[in-house]
Amino acid sequence: MAKVRVNGFTLSIDGYGAGPNQDLKNPLGIGGQGLHTWMIETKTFREGHLGEVGGTTGTDNDITIRSMENIGAWIMGRNMFAPSRGPWPDDGWKGWWGPNPVYHCDVYVLTHHAHPSLVMEGGTTFHFITDGIHSALERAKAVAGDKDVRIGGGASTIRQYLQAGLIDEMHLAISPILLGSGEHLLSGIDLLSLGYECTEYIPTDKAMHVVITKQ
Amino acid sequence: MAKVRVNGFTLSIDGYGAGPNQDLKNPLGIGGQGLHTWMIETKTFREGHLGEVGGTTGTDNDITIRSMENIGAWIMGRNMFAPSRGPWPDDGWKGWWGPNPVYHCDVYVLTHHAHPSLVMEGGTTFHFITDGIHSALERAKAVAGDKDVRIGGGASTIRQYLQAGLIDEMHLAISPILLGSGEHLLSGIDLLSLGYECTEYIPTDKAMHVVITKQ
Repeated sequence: MAKVRVNGFTLSIDGYGAGPNQDLKNPLGIGGQGLHTWMIETKTFREGHLGEVGGTTGTDNDITIRSMENIGAWIMGRNMFAPSRGPWPDDGWKGWWGPNPVYHCDVYVLTHHAHPSLVMEGGTTFHFITDGIHSALERAKAVAGDKDVRIGGGASTIRQYLQAGLIDEMHLAISPILLGSGEHLLSGIDLLSLGYECTEYIPTDKAMHVVITKQ
Repeated sequence: MAKVRVNGFTLSIDGYGAGPNQDLKNPLGIGGQGLHTWMIETKTFREGHLGEVGGTTGTDNDITIRSMENIGAWIMGRNMFAPSRGPWPDDGWKGWWGPNPVYHCDVYVLTHHAHPSLVMEGGTTFHFITDGIHSALERAKAVAGDKDVRIGGGASTIRQYLQAGLIDEMHLAISPILLGSGEHLLSGIDLLSLGYECTEYIPTDKAMHVVITKQ
């Protein structure tokens, strides 16, 4: 059965999914780039996302492959799509990922500000949803069909879907860095009361991977 | 140079160092026993703390050995010493650890309620300190001499020493379980601003070990 999934969302030891002060130079906030060391050195990420050749194989690479499999639609927050805040500036922004984004399917961007859809190369279309997380999920599920819906991030978006009990499975990585402040993923969220359990643990030499599943 | 250390303090994925509702049956709160799977199966813990024979060797055992080396004095919070709260009940309580506790040195227990010292077998004496964390640390350092002072726990005690910038080195383990609620170690504490960095990362098949060091 199709799932609503989170994959590869990475936390610091102190629980932050991004550092403070996101901007053009720091898409994951200050220090946030250090979260994804486990992923950015993998062959799959380097070849698939960066257009480079080679990289590590092994567990972190297998997990990166798994994170991209069987996805029929994505949902992400406005802050994952753009560094701007508030009403959309007239800056031609089409995401961080260039003309041919890595998604290759419909991506629903949660925002309080209407924006026309953006049809990109490679099958990615960004749709901008102003009527809430349930509406975005309904549309994403309708488009995804038998495939899964992946909730990309950031922390605020995942928190909303977790608190609504709408995420079936969440792969988190914990990287051995401190961020000190920023976007905390789980603060004030009681995952046990929401019915979640840790069902898988995979340590690697770069990060601790866990899968948290709704029972 | 002698350090002020934390060792083996274990967090859940969601950052709790103990579950809710500590009592006689649940010294680490509900669910909290699951935190220490990495430690309780080791040869060192089983033979040294439980009086049993055998157990795992390897990295988790090495870390357990290291956690007990070169300690001249301990500091712990009242809630780590006893399940009671408020004024001391007349129940003859002498700690969770039997007549010959594992500490074998002076242990300073932080409390708001005066209590006579307890001289135990094997060199452990519990002293009860009512005039704050600085006073406890001064006494512990004076007794420890060239050896380190270990801050045992619980979360509240470590938080106070962290926020005062008094901990030199902190080994944390993150276990692949969820607790949902309880005693959060790092909530609201900006370890980067306090000058801490992650200086060591050791994954095992039971937990993610990290060492956080004051720079």
